[in-house]
Amino acid sequence: MPREIRLNAFDMACVGHIQQGMWTHPRDRSVEYTSLDYWMGLARTLERGLFDGLFLADVVGVYDVLGGSPDAAIRHAVQVPLLDPMLLVPAMAAVTRHLGFGVTCNLTYEAPPLFARRMGTLDHLTGGRIGWNIVTGYLDSAARAMGLPKQVAHDDRYDAAEAFMDRVYALWEGSWADDAVRRDRSAGVYADPARVRDVAGGGPFLVEPSPQRTPVLYQAGASDRGRAFAARHAECVFVNFGRPADIARLTADLRARTAPRPIRIFAGATLIVGRTRAEAEDLLAEYRRHASIEGALAHAAASLGLDFDRFGMDEPIEVAKTDAISSNVEAMRRVFGPGWTKRQLVDQFVLGSRQRPIVGSAAEVAEALIGFAEAADVDGFNLARTVMPEGIEAVVDLLVPELQARGAYKQAHAPGAYREKLFGAGPRLAAPHPATSHRG
Amino acid sequence: MPREIRLNAFDMACVGHIQQGMWTHPRDRSVEYTSLDYWMGLARTLERGLFDGLFLADVVGVYDVLGGSPDAAIRHAVQVPLLDPMLLVPAMAAVTRHLGFGVTCNLTYEAPPLFARRMGTLDHLTGGRIGWNIVTGYLDSAARAMGLPKQVAHDDRYDAAEAFMDRVYALWEGSWADDAVRRDRSAGVYADPARVRDVAGGGPFLVEPSPQRTPVLYQAGASDRGRAFAARHAECVFVNFGRPADIARLTADLRARTAPRPIRIFAGATLIVGRTRAEAEDLLAEYRRHASIEGALAHAAASLGLDFDRFGMDEPIEVAKTDAISSNVEAMRRVFGPGWTKRQLVDQFVLGSRQRPIVGSAAEVAEALIGFAEAADVDGFNLARTVMPEGIEAVVDLLVPELQARGAYKQAHAPGAYREKLFGAGPRLAAPHPATSHRG
Repeated sequence: MPREIRLNAFDMACVGHIQQGMWTHPRDRSVEYTSLDYWMGLARTLERGLFDGLFLADVVGVYDVLGGSPDAAIRHAVQVPLLDPMLLVPAMAAVTRHLGFGVTCNLTYEAPPLFARRMGTLDHLTGGRIGWNIVTGYLDSAARAMGLPKQVAHDDRYDAAEAFMDRVYALWEGSWADDAVRRDRSAGVYADPARVRDVAGGGPFLVEPSPQRTPVLYQAGASDRGRAFAARHAECVFVNFGRPADIARLTADLRARTAPRPIRIFAGATLIVGRTRAEAEDLLAEYRRHASIEGALAHAAASLGLDFDRFGMDEPIEVAKTDAISSNVEAMRRVFGPGWTKRQLVDQFVLGSRQRPIVGSAAEVAEALIGFAEAADVDGFNLARTVMPEGIEAVVDLLVPELQARGAYKQAHAPGAYREKLFGAGPRLAAPHPATSHRG
Repeated sequence: MPREIRLNAFDMACVGHIQQGMWTHPRDRSVEYTSLDYWMGLARTLERGLFDGLFLADVVGVYDVLGGSPDAAIRHAVQVPLLDPMLLVPAMAAVTRHLGFGVTCNLTYEAPPLFARRMGTLDHLTGGRIGWNIVTGYLDSAARAMGLPKQVAHDDRYDAAEAFMDRVYALWEGSWADDAVRRDRSAGVYADPARVRDVAGGGPFLVEPSPQRTPVLYQAGASDRGRAFAARHAECVFVNFGRPADIARLTADLRARTAPRPIRIFAGATLIVGRTRAEAEDLLAEYRRHASIEGALAHAAASLGLDFDRFGMDEPIEVAKTDAISSNVEAMRRVFGPGWTKRQLVDQFVLGSRQRPIVGSAAEVAEALIGFAEAADVDGFNLARTVMPEGIEAVVDLLVPELQARGAYKQAHAPGAYREKLFGAGPRLAAPHPATSHRG
């Protein structure tokens, strides 16, 4: 019996998320991203496909590394324009009962009590289906938007992130005792103030205990410091890039570091699923005709922190390692070897979700995912969107039945909160997670 | 023909908003405030009643002035626990087509680009039905929750508010030209970067132009500085307290200060509407038995910035005017005269929404509102909740038809965005509003 595979949709409240240019496809509906109907429709599709969750990315700046300008990003709608992802969740929650929502929020520019209240609110409104993808940001453009000259250094961001986590854990877990809320109409007592504590001199948390209290914690840090942070805090880790053997080393390291805490690891993937292999290959060719090379380069340049505008498409890119160059540049060296080129990068990024797309009949893709999950020791996949909604509908209507037929996919959603569905235990974090130390 | 009366529901994402203790009534459903169904049901009711909007209050601290502790507020659920109001809007927008949403947000602790993105997102998702009630906060407890020793002084808050408005206007109105978004699939151009501007060195605004761009701006400042701020920025003003003649002086002042800009002025009101006068009086008596005196005092003490715990119920309250004592204390002196007492206050606050409730048959209440609107020169009313949902259902099912029969209420929602519905002109702010100076 193969391991169970879990699926998340990986999306963003914008026109162009990972696969740049798909919005130009005549059947693509991404330009409707400002409409509630669009997102509610997606949520219904994912619920029908028994997805674990919808994972929403976010940035708070623009991609302005390529050529030192946001022009290419704006022209090709590369994650700009962009809405606030949290605000999509309530309407999607209203039309689903099981789907989880993993929302990215950069903690660097958030006031802990207000952020904690928003997450607590979503945990209530969704009935315990909220998760948080913890990021500290990587864009100088975001810092400048906040009125700062540039972002703080990578490791200092993680120091600040540790302090932030401590603040929000105290609010979520430490302020209201489990028995604080009485709702006693006849006694006229809503809550017992003796069971509600101030947090660090700042008064009590405004939100009464929600099903999960702390949202399901996602993290995707690939640097050493990022992995140490993930090992301490994350319940789910999003990994990207590379060959199954490389991911297997990463997942082994992550599972060793977090033990005895269980974690779920999701690998990014782009699928092109057809009724037949030929149909899928035709779709890939068709989608590729709509891919935006300039959009992909603008995206890649910002992800890598590297303006390779001065390099030709086939010119080897060699750069010195500096703080401003992200660990992704190291990853590119690992993937392509030294002297990699923009052409290799584009080939990788376009319809690759930073991995080559998996293209085939539903049965072929099912076998590929099952093999990949086993080889890389991952629990499932974060599926980047291609042409919407047909790309995700093909997964739901064609791929999921094939996975189910192989015993590799759930037949129904498990009961309970998002955390219960993921780990089969209670809705709240368990020791030795550091959040639990804040309980009274 | 009487003037048209507009109705807003005045509510808050909590158990006890204005009328403390109502949650203990056996028919009251306020304790369901954490559920999406509760809020979607309310939105449907208000849409059916042709309400202009749902006005959501907010605070970001607890009421801890009475006795120097939040205990009474927690015990009686006086605006604590409390959710984030913005996150209620998307689900309510999904089940309505016309209802506007006026959401309170304290700008003091918000990062302008993130706040502006949230409001821009809501304007998109609601199809142009979002409003913002601009507040600068009045609670030291909120400042302490943010890690500050106390809030900044009243007038300094308004200086900071002016700077904040300038920042968010620039983002909403100044970054994307009207013709920036092209959505040209065949040319592969989503937006023209030459028509998107940086804002104050912080890069472009992340959100493409939404129907209204700047949300409908509400304000409720009653102090001199607050009124000057309202005169400059507000499109709708929420007034509270006092006799029609007093309100008439206030509205005359506001309209003179804002001219030639039109404003809509809404007065706070609590209605108890019955099929007959006797039924309404029975309801009032019944509701009053569930009122929380301690809750009302905790609320009033925080609103006034005055711990009157040391005064007996019938002891004249005389305090020196200081910065910490809000302008509401002056208003109490105007209402009750010098030497006012806690008993007078409780009598006013309990089922009074800071005004005596208007109690009677639907016809009587309709006549009272029509008379009040004429005498005070207000455009409508913000209706505080009593027992929910029956209180608002009585307004929709009994009062609205009486107002309609008198020609004092719309027969259908006007078309267009919230701003169009309110003013009968376009969806965007018009000169000489200061936001318009940021356009390219």
